[in-house]
Amino acid sequence: MEKKQSAMLAVLIIAIIIVAVLFYGEFTGGFSFVSISDGSNPQEQYQFSKNLDVWFMLMLVAFLMIFIRKFEWGVCLATLLSAAASFVIYLALQQFVFDYTVWDQALLIRAVICAITLVIAIGVFLGTCKMWQYLLIGVAFGFVYCLVEYIIGNVEIFGTLATDPGGSVLVHLCAAYFGIGVALGIRDKTAFDEPMYTTTHSVTFVWLASMLLWMLWPSFVCSLLPLESVTTGTITCYMAGIGSLLSTYFVSSMLGKINCLVFTYAMLCGPVAIGAPLLSVGPWGGLLIGLIAGAVSTLCFVYLQPWFTKKIGVMDMMGVHNLHGVGGWMGAIFVSVIVGSVSTFVIAIIVFVIVMVTGFVIGLVVRATRGSMVICDDDFDFVKTEAPKDLPEEAPAASPAEA
Amino acid sequence: MEKKQSAMLAVLIIAIIIVAVLFYGEFTGGFSFVSISDGSNPQEQYQFSKNLDVWFMLMLVAFLMIFIRKFEWGVCLATLLSAAASFVIYLALQQFVFDYTVWDQALLIRAVICAITLVIAIGVFLGTCKMWQYLLIGVAFGFVYCLVEYIIGNVEIFGTLATDPGGSVLVHLCAAYFGIGVALGIRDKTAFDEPMYTTTHSVTFVWLASMLLWMLWPSFVCSLLPLESVTTGTITCYMAGIGSLLSTYFVSSMLGKINCLVFTYAMLCGPVAIGAPLLSVGPWGGLLIGLIAGAVSTLCFVYLQPWFTKKIGVMDMMGVHNLHGVGGWMGAIFVSVIVGSVSTFVIAIIVFVIVMVTGFVIGLVVRATRGSMVICDDDFDFVKTEAPKDLPEEAPAASPAEA
Amino acid sequence: MEKKQSAMLAVLIIAIIIVAVLFYGEFTGGFSFVSISDGSNPQEQYQFSKNLDVWFMLMLVAFLMIFIRKFEWGVCLATLLSAAASFVIYLALQQFVFDYTVWDQALLIRAVICAITLVIAIGVFLGTCKMWQYLLIGVAFGFVYCLVEYIIGNVEIFGTLATDPGGSVLVHLCAAYFGIGVALGIRDKTAFDEPMYTTTHSVTFVWLASMLLWMLWPSFVCSLLPLESVTTGTITCYMAGIGSLLSTYFVSSMLGKINCLVFTYAMLCGPVAIGAPLLSVGPWGGLLIGLIAGAVSTLCFVYLQPWFTKKIGVMDMMGVHNLHGVGGWMGAIFVSVIVGSVSTFVIAIIVFVIVMVTGFVIGLVVRATRGSMVICDDDFDFVKTEAPKDLPEEAPAASPAEA
Repeated sequence: MEKKQSAMLAVLIIAIIIVAVLFYGEFTGGFSFVSISDGSNPQEQYQFSKNLDVWFMLMLVAFLMIFIRKFEWGVCLATLLSAAASFVIYLALQQFVFDYTVWDQALLIRAVICAITLVIAIGVFLGTCKMWQYLLIGVAFGFVYCLVEYIIGNVEIFGTLATDPGGSVLVHLCAAYFGIGVALGIRDKTAFDEPMYTTTHSVTFVWLASMLLWMLWPSFVCSLLPLESVTTGTITCYMAGIGSLLSTYFVSSMLGKINCLVFTYAMLCGPVAIGAPLLSVGPWGGLLIGLIAGAVSTLCFVYLQPWFTKKIGVMDMMGVHNLHGVGGWMGAIFVSVIVGSVSTFVIAIIVFVIVMVTGFVIGLVVRATRGSMVICDDDFDFVKTEAPKDLPEEAPAASPAEA
Repeated sequence: MEKKQSAMLAVLIIAIIIVAVLFYGEFTGGFSFVSISDGSNPQEQYQFSKNLDVWFMLMLVAFLMIFIRKFEWGVCLATLLSAAASFVIYLALQQFVFDYTVWDQALLIRAVICAITLVIAIGVFLGTCKMWQYLLIGVAFGFVYCLVEYIIGNVEIFGTLATDPGGSVLVHLCAAYFGIGVALGIRDKTAFDEPMYTTTHSVTFVWLASMLLWMLWPSFVCSLLPLESVTTGTITCYMAGIGSLLSTYFVSSMLGKINCLVFTYAMLCGPVAIGAPLLSVGPWGGLLIGLIAGAVSTLCFVYLQPWFTKKIGVMDMMGVHNLHGVGGWMGAIFVSVIVGSVSTFVIAIIVFVIVMVTGFVIGLVVRATRGSMVICDDDFDFVKTEAPKDLPEEAPAASPAEA
Repeated sequence: MEKKQSAMLAVLIIAIIIVAVLFYGEFTGGFSFVSISDGSNPQEQYQFSKNLDVWFMLMLVAFLMIFIRKFEWGVCLATLLSAAASFVIYLALQQFVFDYTVWDQALLIRAVICAITLVIAIGVFLGTCKMWQYLLIGVAFGFVYCLVEYIIGNVEIFGTLATDPGGSVLVHLCAAYFGIGVALGIRDKTAFDEPMYTTTHSVTFVWLASMLLWMLWPSFVCSLLPLESVTTGTITCYMAGIGSLLSTYFVSSMLGKINCLVFTYAMLCGPVAIGAPLLSVGPWGGLLIGLIAGAVSTLCFVYLQPWFTKKIGVMDMMGVHNLHGVGGWMGAIFVSVIVGSVSTFVIAIIVFVIVMVTGFVIGLVVRATRGSMVICDDDFDFVKTEAPKDLPEEAPAASPAEA
């Protein structure tokens, strides 16, 4: 305990010193990086509101994952820590490595998209690492994501760039396989051996998160588009969402009763898969993609996941692969077929390899640094006090002074 | 079970074929309907964000209805299914019947307003039909709503169109009486005979939904206005909301303790009633309308509802009539008095008749097709597994593979 | 009971008469105050969406305070009542005292910022006054806030106005010390003697509120800025938020397990403290301020609060002082150092004195008018019916007719 506390103090002091130096340079004009875009520009005005919406979605991704009762608060904290670390590292890399000198809303949006990608990814290995390690993973992921983003934006295959305006590959495929890579590196099968309990209300939070994510999705896929394409993106995104919602219901009903934790995830697969072909189809094309994506994702939850879990030994409690992995591949394939160029598909394979390898290495580091594993639940990380036995599910408020 | 599954499969296949044909026509230019509005237009930019806000409200309406503990997830699913079906049918009708060939944000907004109207309406008969029937009702309602919208936008009474910029009649009155019509057609008094349990937190979700709906309301009433009227609409809508919030509290206090499920609904009656006179009053006029609307709605919850339930044999568990029905009538009456023309009131009566009759017929179809009725609660529709007895209110997570 | 009900009826009737007279004047043009700004103006368009975001935050502040299980609904109702009263009084004073004749989105934003300031303040004395007294406090606070706003906007110290674009002083410092003033006036130590129970989910609502407040904060601090400064404000606000999130985690970890009710509050201290220096630093300066603010706020929760509670006899259950009070002072101090002028700091002291004194007087009035104190929990204010013993944490739904 002593050791951990000294380490935390050291990190905090180092961070403050580094940032103070940066601030000093910025304040005195010693460094030339304080230029900020004029906020009255229409693109800036538009992207201001999208910026907040993407952060909104990032927070909701946490609530999509809190159905396990004993790990509700841990999911929130893990989300915030991994998001903060990757966000700030991304910005630092853009400024100091990629020489992004005029900061604008687009830069912030790209940074939060980096963060949300990681937040999706942690769903694969939640509970198998210590809380502070989300910071470590966040720092490492900032580097990985900058590389992936650079490749998607700049590498041409047969003279053509990848087509991925809505992030099927950049965000979803990257998130799913980075997460699986880390999980393979950690390879901890014991963490989830004990039963996971949900409650009626914890699942209701998942419904809330899924429904709000669904409605916010056009903000996500359109956030970096030129203004004239925004209406197209809105239409195809919502049509794809309608499609996957409907086909998820049809396929789920065919298989028996509805599993909430499948339905709330698979209904989002249309918006995931439309990311790449977002501007390459019209409304009915979007609906078609959504119908197929929802059906495929539901079937993957039911038939692929058990095989997958047994085969590669990764639990993927949140079904990240069935939504984001499968959805990402579908996006890359759809756009390749429609546009008639395989470049997006080839880039997707390259991204797949990069994030699996880097994720795996980071997972090994996590495994090596986490010390003896204990099951990470809220009792381990948070102050909790017992309520009297006759007050089920209540605990006296931890006084703020009890930290 | 076998039969239901084949039917679902058939519907899914037929839907995919139809949509694939539409997509093929759109993609090859064989059909002339792929034109989409330029998103950089200021009106498009404005309506993009309003579009998402109205979807936000649609999702929140579900959470306004989840206070019954055993029916939390069912409300979410019913909301999504009825919204999706009516949304897509509305768009298809607009394109193929009303020849709406340039798709823009305004069309999407009108479609989601159609969907939200139905989501309000299902509150009257929740739990008295099977889950798949929400799709059936959604398809039918798409037709009804297109008719109602056409009448309100085009029929002149004594040479004057109805005045309803914020949807008092189009949305709220239509929703309440369509719902009552369906409930009269289904006429199932047994469904709600057993006690309905709430929990502290399920009611807290209702508070959350009501408070966020209240704050989002200006987005709803202003979503289809010309830009120059938007500030006026914001002001009168918020003033009406303040009015109904205050008078609901005063009247509730006069009657004893506060009933959360009355307060959270009636406090929204000001924004409902201001819909029609939205641009015909100033701030203090809006406040006055809100004060009256909140008081009247609260009194209806307390005194009208028991009589209503007994008289017409419809449960209206959610009090849809006291909020949307009564609020819609008030909107129509207020604007008729202020503007000095009865056209809005007369149109309201016409709409009332149409939706009661069509709703009743649809209700009869629902009754005829639902088979033997079982109480529709979450146990009927969803995978649920029992938790050990010493873990009250917890259930092990249904593994995704258990669908 | 009889007396309270007559009083409520009298207040309602008087309110309706006053508003009806105002409406009559507005409608007939007898009063000259119906002018409303053109909504198609870019500034109006921008501020429309910010207006809703600030209301969103106001509602979320309620959910930041609902961790005490037995007082969930009361927090929501108290929030709405105090917000409504102060909002409408602020608008009336602006129109009739400050002659604000052209109503626009900026006026509405200023009014809701007045309301949110009060909603923050009530966190200090929640549960020590009767529900109707939140209306009383709201009316009184409308006057206090107009004065404070006038001073910050107009009083020069050594020829310089205060620098407070994001409301560190106007909102946060004002809220904290007004709340403490009222609590000192009421001086009720008995109200919180009995244990406060939380539940897993009630704390999850706090996480949700805190995370959404964090992401919405740029809307708050930028809502009244000229458009060209909006991007700068977004960047520094988010960087400060990242800073306080990280340093709150580091400091909390150093002290042992994480206390959710400290973490979710202190992580917001960066955005509070950046309010005043919002446009005086760059991104890395914002990050530095956030790092310091989060660390200081966390330490105050742990070490200052127990001393504070004992010393001045105010419970401050929500830790308003540690977040808003301390954060407000830091904002004033930071900007004074960076800009090199003490005017903001001096104005902060003036505001501190004014709100402590007026708050104290209002607290005395509350104490004198509340009658015999009973513990104010949801059982006191709301209809609640008992569930059968074998259904833990459930209660049959209060029928709407039971009001």
